[in-house]
Amino acid sequence: MSQNPSRPDRYRWHAHNARLGEYLGKPEEDGWRRRWYIIIFEAETRAGRRFDEILLLAIVTSVAVVMLDSLPSIHDRAGTLFTVLEWLFTLLFTAEYVMRILVVQKPWRYVLSFYGVIDFVSILPTWLAVFAPEMAYLVDVRLLRLLRVFRVLKLTIYFEEAQVLLRALVNARRKIFVFLGTVFIITIILGTVMYVVEGPQHGFTSIPVSMYWAVVTLTTTGFGDLVPKTPLGQFITSMTILLGYSIIAFPTGIIGAELVNTMRERSPKARTCTHCATEGHDADAVFCKRCATKLPPLSTETASSQ
Amino acid sequence: MSQNPSRPDRYRWHAHNARLGEYLGKPEEDGWRRRWYIIIFEAETRAGRRFDEILLLAIVTSVAVVMLDSLPSIHDRAGTLFTVLEWLFTLLFTAEYVMRILVVQKPWRYVLSFYGVIDFVSILPTWLAVFAPEMAYLVDVRLLRLLRVFRVLKLTIYFEEAQVLLRALVNARRKIFVFLGTVFIITIILGTVMYVVEGPQHGFTSIPVSMYWAVVTLTTTGFGDLVPKTPLGQFITSMTILLGYSIIAFPTGIIGAELVNTMRERSPKARTCTHCATEGHDADAVFCKRCATKLPPLSTETASSQ
Amino acid sequence: MSQNPSRPDRYRWHAHNARLGEYLGKPEEDGWRRRWYIIIFEAETRAGRRFDEILLLAIVTSVAVVMLDSLPSIHDRAGTLFTVLEWLFTLLFTAEYVMRILVVQKPWRYVLSFYGVIDFVSILPTWLAVFAPEMAYLVDVRLLRLLRVFRVLKLTIYFEEAQVLLRALVNARRKIFVFLGTVFIITIILGTVMYVVEGPQHGFTSIPVSMYWAVVTLTTTGFGDLVPKTPLGQFITSMTILLGYSIIAFPTGIIGAELVNTMRERSPKARTCTHCATEGHDADAVFCKRCATKLPPLSTETASSQ
Amino acid sequence: MSQNPSRPDRYRWHAHNARLGEYLGKPEEDGWRRRWYIIIFEAETRAGRRFDEILLLAIVTSVAVVMLDSLPSIHDRAGTLFTVLEWLFTLLFTAEYVMRILVVQKPWRYVLSFYGVIDFVSILPTWLAVFAPEMAYLVDVRLLRLLRVFRVLKLTIYFEEAQVLLRALVNARRKIFVFLGTVFIITIILGTVMYVVEGPQHGFTSIPVSMYWAVVTLTTTGFGDLVPKTPLGQFITSMTILLGYSIIAFPTGIIGAELVNTMRERSPKARTCTHCATEGHDADAVFCKRCATKLPPLSTETASSQ
Repeated sequence: MSQNPSRPDRYRWHAHNARLGEYLGKPEEDGWRRRWYIIIFEAETRAGRRFDEILLLAIVTSVAVVMLDSLPSIHDRAGTLFTVLEWLFTLLFTAEYVMRILVVQKPWRYVLSFYGVIDFVSILPTWLAVFAPEMAYLVDVRLLRLLRVFRVLKLTIYFEEAQVLLRALVNARRKIFVFLGTVFIITIILGTVMYVVEGPQHGFTSIPVSMYWAVVTLTTTGFGDLVPKTPLGQFITSMTILLGYSIIAFPTGIIGAELVNTMRERSPKARTCTHCATEGHDADAVFCKRCATKLPPLSTETASSQ
Repeated sequence: MSQNPSRPDRYRWHAHNARLGEYLGKPEEDGWRRRWYIIIFEAETRAGRRFDEILLLAIVTSVAVVMLDSLPSIHDRAGTLFTVLEWLFTLLFTAEYVMRILVVQKPWRYVLSFYGVIDFVSILPTWLAVFAPEMAYLVDVRLLRLLRVFRVLKLTIYFEEAQVLLRALVNARRKIFVFLGTVFIITIILGTVMYVVEGPQHGFTSIPVSMYWAVVTLTTTGFGDLVPKTPLGQFITSMTILLGYSIIAFPTGIIGAELVNTMRERSPKARTCTHCATEGHDADAVFCKRCATKLPPLSTETASSQ
Repeated sequence: MSQNPSRPDRYRWHAHNARLGEYLGKPEEDGWRRRWYIIIFEAETRAGRRFDEILLLAIVTSVAVVMLDSLPSIHDRAGTLFTVLEWLFTLLFTAEYVMRILVVQKPWRYVLSFYGVIDFVSILPTWLAVFAPEMAYLVDVRLLRLLRVFRVLKLTIYFEEAQVLLRALVNARRKIFVFLGTVFIITIILGTVMYVVEGPQHGFTSIPVSMYWAVVTLTTTGFGDLVPKTPLGQFITSMTILLGYSIIAFPTGIIGAELVNTMRERSPKARTCTHCATEGHDADAVFCKRCATKLPPLSTETASSQ
Repeated sequence: MSQNPSRPDRYRWHAHNARLGEYLGKPEEDGWRRRWYIIIFEAETRAGRRFDEILLLAIVTSVAVVMLDSLPSIHDRAGTLFTVLEWLFTLLFTAEYVMRILVVQKPWRYVLSFYGVIDFVSILPTWLAVFAPEMAYLVDVRLLRLLRVFRVLKLTIYFEEAQVLLRALVNARRKIFVFLGTVFIITIILGTVMYVVEGPQHGFTSIPVSMYWAVVTLTTTGFGDLVPKTPLGQFITSMTILLGYSIIAFPTGIIGAELVNTMRERSPKARTCTHCATEGHDADAVFCKRCATKLPPLSTETASSQ
């Protein structure tokens, strides 16, 4: 973010956007649709890069406007400016949304995709206030307008790198489910025990409230809005925290181990057999694991580059 | 949990239940006992799967009822509904308990097992309120009724995957005992020191209370109900937190290292060359990467177990 | 601690004590000194094991007495019992201290060792109250009596396993010093910045107090006794916490990496060369790294045992 | 820091300073400039080591003076002493600054370097109070004087070891940016949601304040100055904390994995067989563990660099 990305870097940052485009279908005949497709989904042309930069700036600014607008002092002073800006952003994002639908081969795929929904929700609140003011009365207006903050999710299209982290999370999902299930069971039992031990007079007014306390305590967050007052409660709390600490080492350990594996998979040490073109030989392999051909020696340059 | 498990997945999830059944003895002659055994302990028939689904739903719902019942506002409105539901669950769980005893070959093994005790405690409170109301006066009724929350432990029979995490914990138990022992000694000394430094006037009314504070601080939970007021106390607290942070890296490190080992053991890579004893061949390897000997085939059982 | 240790386990737990004995010198001629040396420092005889058990129990009980004595309600009721117990413990520990001095070959080594000092401090307070009551007036009596809590350190002689953790800590000491130095510098700058931003009116009354806050915040302890009130202060706090989180991953990473190394070193995979008796060959070694003799193949039994 | 460094250790600690000197240019002709260059930038002579020791002491003391001076009680008593000390430090650091400029070949490089700026800022406040008192009125005097605390950054020149940690951080920067970006997006959405759910009446007065709360909660810091009061808010908080915990395992995992790699690279084990390109030989290996070829000798330079 802070470093000045060189061109190959840019391509990587936008690869996710480009892949989305391919999935939605690039127009095959030349024409304005193909020209705009290249601008919107690709980053190899000057116009394409400029488009991405403007969009990024608009997303960040519009979210900042929503946030600042929630400060009463700023809302009173800059209310009109914010309204004008809001309309500018809505028009820009609406144009983007319409263009994305128009230029791709499979528009419904886009409309129903994660990014399609986000793009639609981003422009909905402002239009709704004009075309369906009576609906705005039904829902809380403020709540509706804050939906615009979800525009920040439009940023995720630039997060291609997040895929490595995401893959580690996906690989570890089963263990993480088990971990969360265990935490959930501990939370229920602990919440019930503390509800009995401390009781409503010390703020543990019901089992759900006690469970909220149990999560806050097990994870060592410790807000301090609910604290044990009785000696037995304090003893149970101490044990809970120590248990929580032993348990909580699991997600770190699980994800750490997965990350080590994921990073190793992508390492440049992968060698290719000259006979059968099998890839992914270990650094210490001498023979191809598939056809037993002798592998080329690992060049020291490659070996030391990781 | 959220993903739609395919059949092989289901079998895995229920493998723990099936193993428990084998341990308790499957009836050998055909008849209603064998039929019900298959329904209760196995998941290969339609009826067996249906039984598991109903039980799961009943456990989750009954625990939710206990929790919601503790909220005064809900208790007042839905009290009667909850009483009816409670009787339904008690009858269902009692039927399950009786059936499990009747169909297995070694019923006492089941009654005295972890799940047998949990199943008994799950139905005890409701029956006791009917058959021994005078005992309910001795013990706090509320406390007794909350015992029903332990039904949530019935869920653990579906947690076969937890065994990987559990094994890592068991392997590391010696180091974790040493770690907890060290934390305990630090807690005693720190609690005493803070009791002397801050004293009762700042809330550190006794050594046990100070030790509670020490655990809360060492683990970086920091409720804030007890905080140092004197400069010396604040300095000791700062040092304590930093010490706590260095120490607390241990459980994460220990369990992380164990998880890496445990995961490697179970990975399909764990094949050994019969010629040169090299380990760590990939799952798709046909020849030894070091001496080019043909590797033994990867048994599907091992390969699919992770 | 909870598991029932088999005999070989006992030996390991007491190995540290035995090693200390060897360092202090075992009496060579037969006699009461040698007999008592075996009882006190070794655990191979029935009397030696009984001695260890009594001592363990006495340490734990005497520390519990000091802790319970700090509770006003218990102190009032059980004061006399505690005084009697205290004298029993003091006599026992004094006898132990004198015996340790008498039976070893190099008594001064013992007196000046870590355990010698702890043993002396453990009995000092009670004797001082008798023989030098005027000194007890100089020092705070309560403070003096609480010194007895350091008896808990006598337990560490049973913590042979702690050496693995300790070695990882010692190996990583240089990196941990650098880490603590970095944290210290961040703490100073952050404390000063928050002192300027929030100022005395929000509780940040001086730079040392602000530094205490900075440690509490960087480590995500968050007592909540000092919190930022100004928007700028809250922004800086948010950044601090995120910085703290990135930094705090270091001790975990450092110690985790060291533990992985330390555990590998002690692994049963170590093989010995049949020619030159060099140990510590890697699991994938074919030839001795010192004399190039072919190594015996890694038996599958050993290979799978880790 | 606490251990008594042997001579080779000293050299390592000061290697960073020496490298800076080389970068700025060592005077080639003999004379006072070369003599002083050796004293200031090198640590091989007695005078050079003495210079470093005095400077270290002066930095630490001057920072301690600034900190203590912020305590009203100490400021009133020791104000004059502190003023005198402050002038001594300013003169010393000014002399050091001027000398560094005079003796190096490329003085502007030094002035514009990180350490040059720090050295200048360290002496600026005191001189400004004399030569430009009217400017001191513009800026808050207190704020200006506290700039002196940045002198602590002069210490970093002694932190050569920090480079290992820094390199792990630099290698992982891309993943850490993605992680921080993800945290930022979660923070915005969560802050908005809690602003809607809890609202100004429970202290969530604006989105930025809610975002501050979200960072404090996601990272399990939990100050407790803002806590959810509504059941829905408490439920969202519980989910947030568990999400936070799963996410926060990432920096630990990322940095842990990088540290393992970084430490392996620098380890003396990193030798490659010239015949079969096997890596990972132990430091004491003479022959390749795979093909028994004699290994190249381990250069002492590499071996001692860890």
